[in-house]
Amino acid sequence: MNSASAQPQAASKNTAPDAFQAALIDIAADTNSTLDRLLPLPPGPEARVVDAMRYAALDGGKRLRPFLAVSSADLFDVPRARSLRVAAAVEMIHCYSLVHDDLPAMDDDDLRRGRPTVHKKYDEATAILAGDALLTEAFAVLADPATHPDGAVRAALVAELARASGWAGMVGGQMIDLMAATLDLNDDGLKRLQNMKTGCIIAVSCRMGAVLGGQSPATVELLGAYGMDMGLAFQIADDVLDVSSTAAETGKATGKDAAAGKATFVDRLGLTGARNLAQSLAEQACKRLESFGNKADLLRAAAMFAITRRN
Amino acid sequence: MNSASAQPQAASKNTAPDAFQAALIDIAADTNSTLDRLLPLPPGPEARVVDAMRYAALDGGKRLRPFLAVSSADLFDVPRARSLRVAAAVEMIHCYSLVHDDLPAMDDDDLRRGRPTVHKKYDEATAILAGDALLTEAFAVLADPATHPDGAVRAALVAELARASGWAGMVGGQMIDLMAATLDLNDDGLKRLQNMKTGCIIAVSCRMGAVLGGQSPATVELLGAYGMDMGLAFQIADDVLDVSSTAAETGKATGKDAAAGKATFVDRLGLTGARNLAQSLAEQACKRLESFGNKADLLRAAAMFAITRRN
Repeated sequence: MNSASAQPQAASKNTAPDAFQAALIDIAADTNSTLDRLLPLPPGPEARVVDAMRYAALDGGKRLRPFLAVSSADLFDVPRARSLRVAAAVEMIHCYSLVHDDLPAMDDDDLRRGRPTVHKKYDEATAILAGDALLTEAFAVLADPATHPDGAVRAALVAELARASGWAGMVGGQMIDLMAATLDLNDDGLKRLQNMKTGCIIAVSCRMGAVLGGQSPATVELLGAYGMDMGLAFQIADDVLDVSSTAAETGKATGKDAAAGKATFVDRLGLTGARNLAQSLAEQACKRLESFGNKADLLRAAAMFAITRRN
Repeated sequence: MNSASAQPQAASKNTAPDAFQAALIDIAADTNSTLDRLLPLPPGPEARVVDAMRYAALDGGKRLRPFLAVSSADLFDVPRARSLRVAAAVEMIHCYSLVHDDLPAMDDDDLRRGRPTVHKKYDEATAILAGDALLTEAFAVLADPATHPDGAVRAALVAELARASGWAGMVGGQMIDLMAATLDLNDDGLKRLQNMKTGCIIAVSCRMGAVLGGQSPATVELLGAYGMDMGLAFQIADDVLDVSSTAAETGKATGKDAAAGKATFVDRLGLTGARNLAQSLAEQACKRLESFGNKADLLRAAAMFAITRRN
């Protein structure tokens, strides 16, 4: 452990960055086929909204949240058939939030990952409904006995995901984010905003892995704390990327936060300060995994990835 | 039973219309206090979205769905502390759908029950988020152990409500409704649209009462079929009211469906034909309750109310 404080244990023999990238791609592919199966096109005219749900949910992306759900569940040898359903559910929530975020009344984005946003491809009403239906379907997936034979586990998963994505979590964070330009948030306020908006869903991905594994509340909390730290590191790294990289690298407009008058971690701490905070959060995230030994190497690599990625 | 085919058994001694109205008002009041308790204002700036959720959810209305959930659960002597939580959850879903329906990209309504709609009172982004958060909170409420000590029951409630409100139910019905002017629906297509858009949530209110009561799938189906019949009767009666009453009576603009170019049951069947269909659906709904005897008198009165109300 003597080198652990210098940097996250991401370079152990079994989990070179390549191994992490391979696992990320592998779980992303399995998540895609799970989402594809969970969202079949119906024959009736309501197919339009399902088509829009599929457009929103099957459009790729890193699938970081599914990776975290599956890798956390892997710690407890949960069958992939179960953890991939949880991964699909959390990704449905993430994708619905992107669809609604992109709406003209919210961020008003025409493009997402280089493709027209849902309201541009279809129309605004369809985008609102597709987001609503993805949000709803996430809970249908969790509540289905195929996710876990024990009803108490299924209900706990629903409670976890609802808490993380509702007014006290993601939606509350989006609300604060919309008001951020007028709120004059201090450092803690900015951290709280990011933890609510992004961290809660990243953390709950990890928590649900432990819930699926029948773990104690203490272990659920431990994985949640890992997720919260890595989520904030991820977000700060995003702010750093926003000012230090080009649009070609990130695949999205850069410098956008500054243009929107929103305070970022880079504004507050400077580029070096922000990088250092992200680094120490990633280290803290890794430290929380000590009790799992090598079995948690992929999760450690994920924390490292959060702060070293170029997009 | 010899008079049962002539009209619904709504006039039995214990459930004169007055008794039904009293029960409706009583359950509405208890639903309001339950919603009030379930949606406390937090101290942080995310209070804005919770305030909008409260504005949307505590604004009254008939509370027909809560009445059906509680009255169905009453058949099986379910404690009100449990059934009122289910009532609050289904009302959250109903209210979120109204908030999103009222948005400019959807029905573009400025007023609901005489008050500014959520996006008029706050703004569009807040209305989108408040709808999302109400939808999410409904599942949080169902998944909480306070709703039922058995996790399998809680998960079943979540599965029921998600199925009824997602792409295969309410949202799918809204999608079809938005396309209705161009779809050239036949009678069955119009019934299917209404069953999805309105009937599924009314039916699931009844179904969840049976699920809370630990009833067999057959009994859950039976109460669901009652709800589906009465929901369609309710909707047809709405079409009748839309052309035969004044705005002062219904509290909303009348003749609106015709103006929107949407086919209604009155267009298809004429005023008398629509009235007769509503009547026979209400009778069929009541017939499904035979095995419950007098205990179901309030539910019979509700079916009668659906077709005799003036607003």
